[in-house]
Amino acid sequence: MQIAVAQLNLKVGALNNNAAKIKASIVRAADHGADLVIFSELSLSGYPPQDLVLYKSFVDREWELLEKEILPLTLGGPAVVIGSAYRENGFLYNAALYLAEGRIKPVHRKSLLPNCAVFNEDRYCGPASGLSVEMIGDLPTAITICEDIWSAGDYEKRQCGRTDPLKELFTGGARLLINISASPYHLGRQKQREDLLAFLAREYNTGILYINQVGGNDELIFDGSSLVYNNRGQLLYRAASFSEEFFYIESNDLFKTAGTICPPAKEDLDTVLQALTLGLRDYVAKTGFSKAVLGLSGGVDSALVAALAVEALGAENVLGLIMPSPYSSDHSVKDALALADNLGIKRQIIAINKPFTAYLDLLNDNGNALQDLAEENLQARIRGNLVMHFSNREGYLALATGNKSELAVGYCTLYGDMAGGLAVIADLPKILVYELATHINKLKGKEFIPRDTIEKAPSAELRPDQKDEDSLPPYALLDPILQLYIEENLSINEICSRGYEQEIVEKIAQLVDKAEFKRRQAAPGLRVTTRSFGSGRRMPIARSYE
Amino acid sequence: MQIAVAQLNLKVGALNNNAAKIKASIVRAADHGADLVIFSELSLSGYPPQDLVLYKSFVDREWELLEKEILPLTLGGPAVVIGSAYRENGFLYNAALYLAEGRIKPVHRKSLLPNCAVFNEDRYCGPASGLSVEMIGDLPTAITICEDIWSAGDYEKRQCGRTDPLKELFTGGARLLINISASPYHLGRQKQREDLLAFLAREYNTGILYINQVGGNDELIFDGSSLVYNNRGQLLYRAASFSEEFFYIESNDLFKTAGTICPPAKEDLDTVLQALTLGLRDYVAKTGFSKAVLGLSGGVDSALVAALAVEALGAENVLGLIMPSPYSSDHSVKDALALADNLGIKRQIIAINKPFTAYLDLLNDNGNALQDLAEENLQARIRGNLVMHFSNREGYLALATGNKSELAVGYCTLYGDMAGGLAVIADLPKILVYELATHINKLKGKEFIPRDTIEKAPSAELRPDQKDEDSLPPYALLDPILQLYIEENLSINEICSRGYEQEIVEKIAQLVDKAEFKRRQAAPGLRVTTRSFGSGRRMPIARSYE
Repeated sequence: MQIAVAQLNLKVGALNNNAAKIKASIVRAADHGADLVIFSELSLSGYPPQDLVLYKSFVDREWELLEKEILPLTLGGPAVVIGSAYRENGFLYNAALYLAEGRIKPVHRKSLLPNCAVFNEDRYCGPASGLSVEMIGDLPTAITICEDIWSAGDYEKRQCGRTDPLKELFTGGARLLINISASPYHLGRQKQREDLLAFLAREYNTGILYINQVGGNDELIFDGSSLVYNNRGQLLYRAASFSEEFFYIESNDLFKTAGTICPPAKEDLDTVLQALTLGLRDYVAKTGFSKAVLGLSGGVDSALVAALAVEALGAENVLGLIMPSPYSSDHSVKDALALADNLGIKRQIIAINKPFTAYLDLLNDNGNALQDLAEENLQARIRGNLVMHFSNREGYLALATGNKSELAVGYCTLYGDMAGGLAVIADLPKILVYELATHINKLKGKEFIPRDTIEKAPSAELRPDQKDEDSLPPYALLDPILQLYIEENLSINEICSRGYEQEIVEKIAQLVDKAEFKRRQAAPGLRVTTRSFGSGRRMPIARSYE
Repeated sequence: MQIAVAQLNLKVGALNNNAAKIKASIVRAADHGADLVIFSELSLSGYPPQDLVLYKSFVDREWELLEKEILPLTLGGPAVVIGSAYRENGFLYNAALYLAEGRIKPVHRKSLLPNCAVFNEDRYCGPASGLSVEMIGDLPTAITICEDIWSAGDYEKRQCGRTDPLKELFTGGARLLINISASPYHLGRQKQREDLLAFLAREYNTGILYINQVGGNDELIFDGSSLVYNNRGQLLYRAASFSEEFFYIESNDLFKTAGTICPPAKEDLDTVLQALTLGLRDYVAKTGFSKAVLGLSGGVDSALVAALAVEALGAENVLGLIMPSPYSSDHSVKDALALADNLGIKRQIIAINKPFTAYLDLLNDNGNALQDLAEENLQARIRGNLVMHFSNREGYLALATGNKSELAVGYCTLYGDMAGGLAVIADLPKILVYELATHINKLKGKEFIPRDTIEKAPSAELRPDQKDEDSLPPYALLDPILQLYIEENLSINEICSRGYEQEIVEKIAQLVDKAEFKRRQAAPGLRVTTRSFGSGRRMPIARSYE
């Protein structure tokens, strides 16, 4: 049996366009003589459709496309496994449909509905109440959806006792495992997937076809990287990461020792760059933009975002605004200009002194600067206004350039440097920002991001001689503490027991807690770690910090 | 048996302070000779604690307070029913604990974990796997938590087949129903509760003690309104709405015909005002502020927010900024001044012409205004900057004044009029804003909000002679269509079939869809309707609008 796999980049809500892409893939598989073609989870709606599925009309239209447009292609064509929302007795399910010879076979429903991290599936769907093995050709097959495979072994310990649908399906005689997924990228995820699938293949003596969505949808970056294992747990094929792919596999190959085995996944700075590039490109395109504007401070954050924007959109579609204030150093403008030249992007210098002075005239008795925090914020907000002005007047998407460390401790200005439609590096700790900037220069084989930008002490330059380290611990200390506090949910005491100083840990935890009001109004940030802000970490604002 | 009920306003995360309030209530009940005292759901942490409970240390500390501080008071004192997080075998539960004579009796866990609307409980907790009836005095009692009672009858139809814990508990011999809740206010909710509880009392021939949390926690306003029913379904007592209360009930009264019955709940403009006042007051206090600043445009939205702020914080704690631009009408300043005078608040006039001109000098070739959308936004953002300046320098909480209709269609400026820590009327359709403004004047018996403000045609005044109705359908048409599209999730076709014109409905739906990026960065808005923006409606940004 020849099986085709369609790893597609689908747009959320784009039912008609997604259906057209799916149909084209079926036709392509048919032309190739494939017997079966497999698509990812919730392919028609794109994932995550979120509250769109609370519109009955949306799910109705999805089903209509499935029945009228897709199903007929299986009559005399290849069979199809595809993810779709499915309604029965008024209840909604996340389903995998097996379509063969013009008929919809009994529906396979998702058993395990993730609600952790960025997920909310219990908001929409009910779990499967019974499971059945599907005969595909002569292969009894366990058709499962994403989370369904993650109960096995010790790979994912969740807070509640959960059933293991695989155990039931393989006890029921399954020999092949198909898992259709919409599994978002984070650094380290691919290794988890491959360890799990290799384990499952051996545990159940099964071939595995793991099909993942690709593409950026708001904060989430789906990396594709679909996988094929034989029943020895050998990795036969890994599809492209961060791009679409269409490939074929012979079912016989799933049940014999492999000639060549794929090397294990590499997850490194390259994959982070690829992920961010895809997330940025798709966010811009899927929101209907084609070009982006950002402020260039001469610092490493905006430099990295500019470099990513060039990679994602092309230099001709990126505009950098260099907006010095009375407190900007000479080198900041020089570094920003050098960056713009290196990247080949358009740039414009707009000194903010005049509006800043106009505000001070309104706000201060004699119009002189007080150089307090309010005036620091004011400068950042004037810049935010200018960036947004270019967005509003000229149709650029505004990119916010703040990193995760800043957002964590609130070292950023709401409506100022936080302004923008997408916060490209909001989930990158500052140290990772430096590493990526250095790595980009290495990849380019030249000084793409100016060395001065990478080497100088970080500064907001909102008052004379300001340095980040006047207000914050050094990033080499800050970032690991933030990681323990935010990603691992450790308490102050638990972090101190790892050897960090109580006073510093307390200060950082307090800064994090008190900055929640800023993060609540932050632009969506591309997810790179296990715990991004936004839907990944949901904290009350009005609370105590005991 | 004398039963005390403590309807408390608890602060999220304030474990020590909440424990102190709980202890004081137990002591008070003991002094009165009560046998039992009942508290609301998740009392120690406050509700909703959100991702705080993902910190193991947080739940540990909660349990420590329960065991060491609260439990000992039941030795020789009244028994206690209280909500708390509970961990067992590494899994977390939302529990109701019965503490008596210094011992924790078998734990009652929540069976039904809501994930709809603003709720996320499956993110944290597992459901009860078995239920037991508790003997309290000589009364076999069903101890349940909030959602547990909402499966009965037709009162709440959810998307998935659910068990009904009440059926199991009353089949098991229960005669009294205790439900500890953290049930947030929305307009119409109290009637639903009272209809349901009266039905349950008769259905199961049971007395009912329904204890609800009170107080504002971020977007959510908990109204209290705790209820007592006898087994005839007669309402014996309704506690205060929107404030704390401590009251006693004799268990015998739960099982005989009532002498006097409470009249049904009234839900009207008064309750909306009380809800918003509480939500605003608590948000300010619980975030550590005591005073608030807002822009006064002379329009009805900012006038209503100012009036609410005066009610919540006192006139001496409210600052109104009147910020005319070159396009402001004379009457807008006059109306704003009249409002400030009527309310007795501080106010300051700051014309934005100078910074506006300074920006235009930077952005336009000859410095002349183009009067395009970008310049409209710029004026709004200058005002946002000024409001935030007073917040940053002088410690006022900034209040955003946008209404739900504007937010829905995106007739508002990100970082401009949307700026602020709390969006007080973000869940009020424009027509309800007018009704409340008029109602406040009626309550005050004088022109508190200037009549001109209420009667003039609404305008953003960001270009010459601008009126809302130049860009939007009249609110009398807009608001009902928004209600159908947003709160009832109807499609364009379904809305048209109610008699609305296709072209207008399509335009509105498109405006709503395209404004998602603004709402994602909006300040938290106090919830008043069944479907508020924010956590109540979770929509993708990068999507198609087919």
